[in-house]
Amino acid sequence: MRIKDFFLPTLREDPQDAEIESHKLMIKAGLIRKMAAGVYSYLPFGYIALKNVEKIIREEMNNAGALELLFPAIMPKELWDETGRWEIYGDEMFKLKDRKGRFFCLGPTHEEAVVDLARKELRSYKDLPKIFYQIQTKYRDEIRPRFGLMRAREFLMKDAYSFDTSEENLEISYKKMYDAYIKIFKRCHLDVIPIEADSGAIGGKVSHEFVVISELGGESEFVMCPKCGYAANIEAAKSLDSETLETEDEEPLEKINTFDNKTIEEVSDFLKVPRHKLAKSLVYKIDHKYVLAVIRGDDELNEVKLKNFFNAKSLELATDEEVLSIFKAHTGAIGPVNSPIETIVDKKVLKMKNFICGANEDGFHLKNVNLYRDFTPNYVEDIRVVKEGDFCPKCGTPLKKYNGIELGHTFKLGTKYSEKMNATFLDADGKEKHFIMGCYGIGVGRTLQAIIEKFHDDKGIIWPMNIAPFKVEILPINTSDEEINNASNRLHESLVKEGIEVLLDDRDDLSAGEKFNDADLIGIPLQVIVGRAFKKEGKFEIKIRKTGERKTMDFNEIVNFIKEAIKE
Amino acid sequence: MRIKDFFLPTLREDPQDAEIESHKLMIKAGLIRKMAAGVYSYLPFGYIALKNVEKIIREEMNNAGALELLFPAIMPKELWDETGRWEIYGDEMFKLKDRKGRFFCLGPTHEEAVVDLARKELRSYKDLPKIFYQIQTKYRDEIRPRFGLMRAREFLMKDAYSFDTSEENLEISYKKMYDAYIKIFKRCHLDVIPIEADSGAIGGKVSHEFVVISELGGESEFVMCPKCGYAANIEAAKSLDSETLETEDEEPLEKINTFDNKTIEEVSDFLKVPRHKLAKSLVYKIDHKYVLAVIRGDDELNEVKLKNFFNAKSLELATDEEVLSIFKAHTGAIGPVNSPIETIVDKKVLKMKNFICGANEDGFHLKNVNLYRDFTPNYVEDIRVVKEGDFCPKCGTPLKKYNGIELGHTFKLGTKYSEKMNATFLDADGKEKHFIMGCYGIGVGRTLQAIIEKFHDDKGIIWPMNIAPFKVEILPINTSDEEINNASNRLHESLVKEGIEVLLDDRDDLSAGEKFNDADLIGIPLQVIVGRAFKKEGKFEIKIRKTGERKTMDFNEIVNFIKEAIKE
Repeated sequence: MRIKDFFLPTLREDPQDAEIESHKLMIKAGLIRKMAAGVYSYLPFGYIALKNVEKIIREEMNNAGALELLFPAIMPKELWDETGRWEIYGDEMFKLKDRKGRFFCLGPTHEEAVVDLARKELRSYKDLPKIFYQIQTKYRDEIRPRFGLMRAREFLMKDAYSFDTSEENLEISYKKMYDAYIKIFKRCHLDVIPIEADSGAIGGKVSHEFVVISELGGESEFVMCPKCGYAANIEAAKSLDSETLETEDEEPLEKINTFDNKTIEEVSDFLKVPRHKLAKSLVYKIDHKYVLAVIRGDDELNEVKLKNFFNAKSLELATDEEVLSIFKAHTGAIGPVNSPIETIVDKKVLKMKNFICGANEDGFHLKNVNLYRDFTPNYVEDIRVVKEGDFCPKCGTPLKKYNGIELGHTFKLGTKYSEKMNATFLDADGKEKHFIMGCYGIGVGRTLQAIIEKFHDDKGIIWPMNIAPFKVEILPINTSDEEINNASNRLHESLVKEGIEVLLDDRDDLSAGEKFNDADLIGIPLQVIVGRAFKKEGKFEIKIRKTGERKTMDFNEIVNFIKEAIKE
Repeated sequence: MRIKDFFLPTLREDPQDAEIESHKLMIKAGLIRKMAAGVYSYLPFGYIALKNVEKIIREEMNNAGALELLFPAIMPKELWDETGRWEIYGDEMFKLKDRKGRFFCLGPTHEEAVVDLARKELRSYKDLPKIFYQIQTKYRDEIRPRFGLMRAREFLMKDAYSFDTSEENLEISYKKMYDAYIKIFKRCHLDVIPIEADSGAIGGKVSHEFVVISELGGESEFVMCPKCGYAANIEAAKSLDSETLETEDEEPLEKINTFDNKTIEEVSDFLKVPRHKLAKSLVYKIDHKYVLAVIRGDDELNEVKLKNFFNAKSLELATDEEVLSIFKAHTGAIGPVNSPIETIVDKKVLKMKNFICGANEDGFHLKNVNLYRDFTPNYVEDIRVVKEGDFCPKCGTPLKKYNGIELGHTFKLGTKYSEKMNATFLDADGKEKHFIMGCYGIGVGRTLQAIIEKFHDDKGIIWPMNIAPFKVEILPINTSDEEINNASNRLHESLVKEGIEVLLDDRDDLSAGEKFNDADLIGIPLQVIVGRAFKKEGKFEIKIRKTGERKTMDFNEIVNFIKEAIKE
């Protein structure tokens, strides 16, 4: 392909609204352009790379026995009402009306569609197992779209759905997809870590996120154990409940005047006690009831854990007015002793002795509070956010915390959707049973961007061979020189004949320096420079983009070298 | 692929809401399923076939030098306001709001997107010509979705857009696309007729529809000259203005009582004169003014021609109330003599003598009306619908009329969009000029369905080899027979190793008859029956689906036969 016949609008300057390197490079190297917040066009250079990623995903899904199909992106409301997700998804789902006033959504995911298909077409245990997948444009109206394709509102996704007769068979399907994911990300040269995750709006019991560590921001926080490899999303991560039970003797309960000091920081400073000697008390409205949640002063409350524990549809922090009306004291002065509402305490609180908490009276705190002596909680549970340095729940080693980019997500759904949509099959024992399901997603554009996030330097992209839109770029450094032009054209034709994707920079209004900079920016793995060495001794100079290594070769050598190199 | 591992939900009965054979067969043979009116899922069997069509389109577009990219399906209103099409498209365009209240549409086509890209990224005549294309899901909220994928609301389309420096260069790009279309449809084995067409909402001066003749309904009516090959969509078709001028002498104008007779039929019957001696008068509201349109009594008015003549944004028939208030007479009693509003007459009316029309007085008509003696029209133009038997505008031969399915559409847009969106490039003469554009669409799903509409019999689909989802189907007629099973498996493995797409019907709960019926329904080109001949003499029976021809062969013969046959 000659650049003049191609479309490669590269930029000299960094785009202003790009926050991370991969996003900048995708704009600068002419892979994508923004149309609206979180809405991008793939230009030809980016689209070839995207298709290369798609091909890897498709091959591994097919190898795993999954069947490709394509659901519509627009789906009628009635289908989503069956699972209640028309409401649950809220503003994150794009909704529209057709000319007759019927409501449709733009699919953020396709459980409803696939379950509808299964309940109509899969009738017997003989039709199972089945794994369906599609590679399709999805829609999520993110509050804060950012990082280019990392958090877009229209994005390409591979989503797969498995149907099994039993939990045991779901394990097999889940393992197939899990293994396929490992292979896919390996072929994309990404060091992906499967971490335990919360299931969020998709639901189900077990789920894994497939993340890559990203030092520059990223969307997923997770912890990992450097010893045993335990890894979990921050929302789902557990830790040992505490080092040890505090050993001091229980002192008598005291009410102390803390005046205007309300927050953990203020009270801790005022009383000159460390934060871990205080308890933090928070009132939540969980579905329709109010609950007091108590954690150690140096911990943070994990709302996902709290919501999951109560199996709640909605959860929000109570307002100051609500707290005052329930406790007759303001936020910051409340506590679990004589709480007028149900109390849940974090497991770490079990290990605390003689701690300080609000007295349920403005201006006062209680000192030397002790669990079971001064109050009895209704529930004890792990409801805190794991911190760096907390202890691994599996082996006790201090955990490390990372930022990651989520590229894939797998879920064991069980019967969550098949029950709601009454999707059953006739089992071998003659009974109608609900399908046991799993679902499995990969962000295709996000994976492409993660590859660029990993493979680049300060000059530009460094494509891995199998993802590179072109394998070779030929750079004639002086297109007004007929010999150089002829040699470049001849090499271009030879490589095209060999079926090798090659780009020829035939632009005549760029200096050699500009061409070299552009070549490093777009990052084709092999650069062939036709210039000084050619004029001097008839040789081509090859530069390996990844290593910067240079060699000179004659025509036949270089063709053979390239043929070998692209097998990589 | 073993059917047990595949997903092939075939049906015995015809689906109720399918009107044409191809639609019925796509449902029955398990290619597609309906999710909502005009909204379909592609099942795995249909999706493979669709991808085969897509591959042909992609290859020919690439061969023609077009560059593939991918625009978003959702686009912001602001972009569509620039061309006025946010309003013009009306209810046919799906519209939605994001969480911040910003309006988006689901793209029915992508001129706005591509012009926006061009004006930002193509700056010089050196960047031209360029042809961009994408294969993408499109959305049109059809009033009456029907015929399966033929008129769907969500559908896959290949849309291409060319950018040139001049009309002459547009000719070159247009020819490239035209030729690519001919090749694409040839490779799809479709006898496509390029017909002259109206440009509709897309606009521009010249446009061609690529249609296949369809006896069973279809969406496009067109006429074709059996002698010179002139072919045009009914909306755009012209014909010779008339045989000859009528020769009778002009008689004196007379007002006659026609009582309650209003329509052409009623007046013609009542007065016992042929319909072509009457003139039909219709009042239209064209943009904001009213116009009286007059055609011969046996003709039909072509609203597209009328709208184009006035270069109007909107056109609608006036209501009875509007007619009464303008003419002081009811619809059916009005006419061009002393018309209170502007009058346009069809060219055929020029040839009429002594005709009859409404008297602009309820209950009365005028007899022996003659143009220029009794009234003078403001405009004379071809505003009628061409009928079968009208004369070819090029050679005078009587035209034939057909129903067709539009598979592709090409448009010479000129500067229509580049002017509205102020999209310019710097030409060689140093001047800023508007891009000269063309646009080119193909309905991908529609093309797939047209192939089925052409290649089927009363038993099912008869796939052309290159479109067939599988090339060979192996039919072991008794799966409880170990020899038959082993032989079938061995053949299956051998063909898989050869890279041949093969389906093995390993279902054990179907009779031989049911398997044969299913095989004919799904229409794989080569059926290999492993049954009686195998038990008797170790031979495989091959059946060619297209011809019904049968041969028996041993293992090596059949593998070689298949390898040859799929080269077809």
